[in-house]
Amino acid sequence: MSSYSSIKEECYEANMQLPKLGLVVYTFGNVSAVDRKRGVFAIKPSGVPYETLRSQDMVIVDFDNTVVEGKMRPSSDTKTHAFLYKNWLKVGGIAHTHATYSVSWAQAQRDIPIMGTTHADHLTCDIPCAPPMRDELIIGDYEHNTGQQIIDCFNEKGLSYEEVEMVLVGNHGPFTWGDSAHKAVYNSKVLEELGKMTYLSLQINPNAPRLKDALIKKHYERKHGKDSYYGQS
Amino acid sequence: MSSYSSIKEECYEANMQLPKLGLVVYTFGNVSAVDRKRGVFAIKPSGVPYETLRSQDMVIVDFDNTVVEGKMRPSSDTKTHAFLYKNWLKVGGIAHTHATYSVSWAQAQRDIPIMGTTHADHLTCDIPCAPPMRDELIIGDYEHNTGQQIIDCFNEKGLSYEEVEMVLVGNHGPFTWGDSAHKAVYNSKVLEELGKMTYLSLQINPNAPRLKDALIKKHYERKHGKDSYYGQS
Amino acid sequence: MSSYSSIKEECYEANMQLPKLGLVVYTFGNVSAVDRKRGVFAIKPSGVPYETLRSQDMVIVDFDNTVVEGKMRPSSDTKTHAFLYKNWLKVGGIAHTHATYSVSWAQAQRDIPIMGTTHADHLTCDIPCAPPMRDELIIGDYEHNTGQQIIDCFNEKGLSYEEVEMVLVGNHGPFTWGDSAHKAVYNSKVLEELGKMTYLSLQINPNAPRLKDALIKKHYERKHGKDSYYGQS
Amino acid sequence: MSSYSSIKEECYEANMQLPKLGLVVYTFGNVSAVDRKRGVFAIKPSGVPYETLRSQDMVIVDFDNTVVEGKMRPSSDTKTHAFLYKNWLKVGGIAHTHATYSVSWAQAQRDIPIMGTTHADHLTCDIPCAPPMRDELIIGDYEHNTGQQIIDCFNEKGLSYEEVEMVLVGNHGPFTWGDSAHKAVYNSKVLEELGKMTYLSLQINPNAPRLKDALIKKHYERKHGKDSYYGQS
Repeated sequence: MSSYSSIKEECYEANMQLPKLGLVVYTFGNVSAVDRKRGVFAIKPSGVPYETLRSQDMVIVDFDNTVVEGKMRPSSDTKTHAFLYKNWLKVGGIAHTHATYSVSWAQAQRDIPIMGTTHADHLTCDIPCAPPMRDELIIGDYEHNTGQQIIDCFNEKGLSYEEVEMVLVGNHGPFTWGDSAHKAVYNSKVLEELGKMTYLSLQINPNAPRLKDALIKKHYERKHGKDSYYGQS
Repeated sequence: MSSYSSIKEECYEANMQLPKLGLVVYTFGNVSAVDRKRGVFAIKPSGVPYETLRSQDMVIVDFDNTVVEGKMRPSSDTKTHAFLYKNWLKVGGIAHTHATYSVSWAQAQRDIPIMGTTHADHLTCDIPCAPPMRDELIIGDYEHNTGQQIIDCFNEKGLSYEEVEMVLVGNHGPFTWGDSAHKAVYNSKVLEELGKMTYLSLQINPNAPRLKDALIKKHYERKHGKDSYYGQS
Repeated sequence: MSSYSSIKEECYEANMQLPKLGLVVYTFGNVSAVDRKRGVFAIKPSGVPYETLRSQDMVIVDFDNTVVEGKMRPSSDTKTHAFLYKNWLKVGGIAHTHATYSVSWAQAQRDIPIMGTTHADHLTCDIPCAPPMRDELIIGDYEHNTGQQIIDCFNEKGLSYEEVEMVLVGNHGPFTWGDSAHKAVYNSKVLEELGKMTYLSLQINPNAPRLKDALIKKHYERKHGKDSYYGQS
Repeated sequence: MSSYSSIKEECYEANMQLPKLGLVVYTFGNVSAVDRKRGVFAIKPSGVPYETLRSQDMVIVDFDNTVVEGKMRPSSDTKTHAFLYKNWLKVGGIAHTHATYSVSWAQAQRDIPIMGTTHADHLTCDIPCAPPMRDELIIGDYEHNTGQQIIDCFNEKGLSYEEVEMVLVGNHGPFTWGDSAHKAVYNSKVLEELGKMTYLSLQINPNAPRLKDALIKKHYERKHGKDSYYGQS
């Protein structure tokens, strides 16, 4: 039995949520779960359908992209995961999907504006859409550079990855994260719902205003602030 | 066994309808059921996923927001429920969701216009969208004030809560009610369907007219009037 | 055992298809099945949820709206069914739903234009949307007059009910029919799909042309013409 | 037992994926699987519902449209399949559906522009929409000419059927293919997803740009190029 079975199992369970939540078809998407103490993460093998996926198929990779354990090739997006784990020290899990509304906003190259309390329950700003990379970065170490592009986007906009746990990569799709692989997948589902609601709101009223600051603060604080009263303590 | 097991069970069953009807994901949404004689209501505990929810987890609260029975913290929207029960004496159950089309109209800050007989089968006016609250009310006792905002909206528009059993709270989402928790959830589903149909109608024909008065009256009366002939008597 | 058990069973099975096909929620919609020899039809009882519906609950009614057998009140739309059976002698079953896209077009008061071969596989003209009735007809014998309105619409447009088995009643919703209750439900589903496809096509290209006559004729004939070669003979 | 049981089974399994993937209702759609050595293909019988379809019902047809084995009439689109197999020598399976978004673009007579990496993972150009045929071709050998129209479209646009495994036939719907019947169905599902995403992107931002060339090349190459690193080798 693998000494990494704990993160393999967490990673497997989180991956299996993706088709169940309607976020992927076929082999699309991937989730990883990290073991910070050992400096490795478990990630879905590349191109394997969810129906045949098994916990023991998860591939163990370190933050420099070296496969530590596993017979299969890891997800083609592995370097993006590794780069984010290496730079954002409190991330516990990462998810990437091609969910419909999330990808649609990414293809539209638009941030998803904050328009309601569902959004403010999770983050206090627009969901950022990183611009497509410059050609030399695409031709180069593409997946590594995708991670760099995400972090550059957060730095330029002055965002904290601990407060904003989701991003759209322009023309590509969403990456989300959290303190666990399960939370990363949760954020992928929330992002997809926000993308759908905001799309519809702007179809109904193209001039609908941004959510007012007092509501943004109230909803975020009641769920995440020091005096939060959402959930069981 | 709890002496409140009847409303706990009603509340639990109604809450479990929400994910089944596609109105919520994860821990979103909440339903309550009232016991008028004893002056208390049962409500979903805050932040608990539907998959693990149990009837005995429902929290018993009185109309002044005091927890009467239950080990868990009640829904963060509890004060809104309490305020509505306290002021609208014939309400038997209340539901709150973040259903897609309902939230989309709320974010668009638009009443849902009455455009068809499906709408008139349930109410005779546009579905009201209460405006977002003033900042001091948001910063203050927010959930209590949300209840006040709903009642103010009904008073200003001259609506009766016994005839109009649904409202959109601007930038937030829908609250619905009825003579039971089940009816409150039914109204949440109907509202979501009406939101979707009316959205599509206005996309197809932005100049589509309001439903004519004779049809509004006919459909409402055949279902709710004194000579109604819909359903089994 | 009822002497009408054959049409009761046909009617029951066809009604139960409506929620399965996603065409109705709760108690919405109704289907009937006729016995031409005996001059009666079986129809869903009014306001009964599909989950609790039983074959023996179907109500037997004659073409003058008299209940012949059954303890429950028939659908509130019974007179529309009766009028259509009385006037259109080859109709074997009728369905009425509040399906989303069908109702959306009805609320938009627009015929659904013929834009593709999926449409031409079933009918050769736009799907007609009958205008809302004059007020005196609504106030009068409403459901009977709804049947009259449908037939008037077909007469004015020169349509044959044997070739065009579906109609939208303006601001209300779809009625469909066929040589059996099953075929009527089939047509409700096809209408809903056509409503969705055509809605989307016009969103993608508001100037998309009508299907050319040669394709209309070809697709309709290969399925319904005297030399048809679709299906098993 | 049939000597063609291998392609019959492949064909049956692929056909049964269509309703499961939400690409067809009732009897719509058809898939075929070829046996190149024997110069025949298995195809769905015409007008048979998926619920009652059996592996042994698949009809064996040669490339000149002669039924070689089978008691049922083959799909009405059989000649289109035969023509494509005869001309495109490496095609192993073909699928035709009336999936919602694919048909919507076909009815809009628009190519689906390449706007994201989901698209570039599968092909490097817009998804072509062949124009409707000239009337004399429709009146003539319609299904044979549909195959000709697809091939003409590819020749005019300089496309390779080995690189672009999908097409929209204007006003009709999608045809897709691949090295197996399963792959053909996979491409039908991918096309439907691309049609939905690109529709939404253009609703969100009508001026959203085409995917840049470097990203098109990168994503296609990492999955299909000689140094591809997607999937298990």
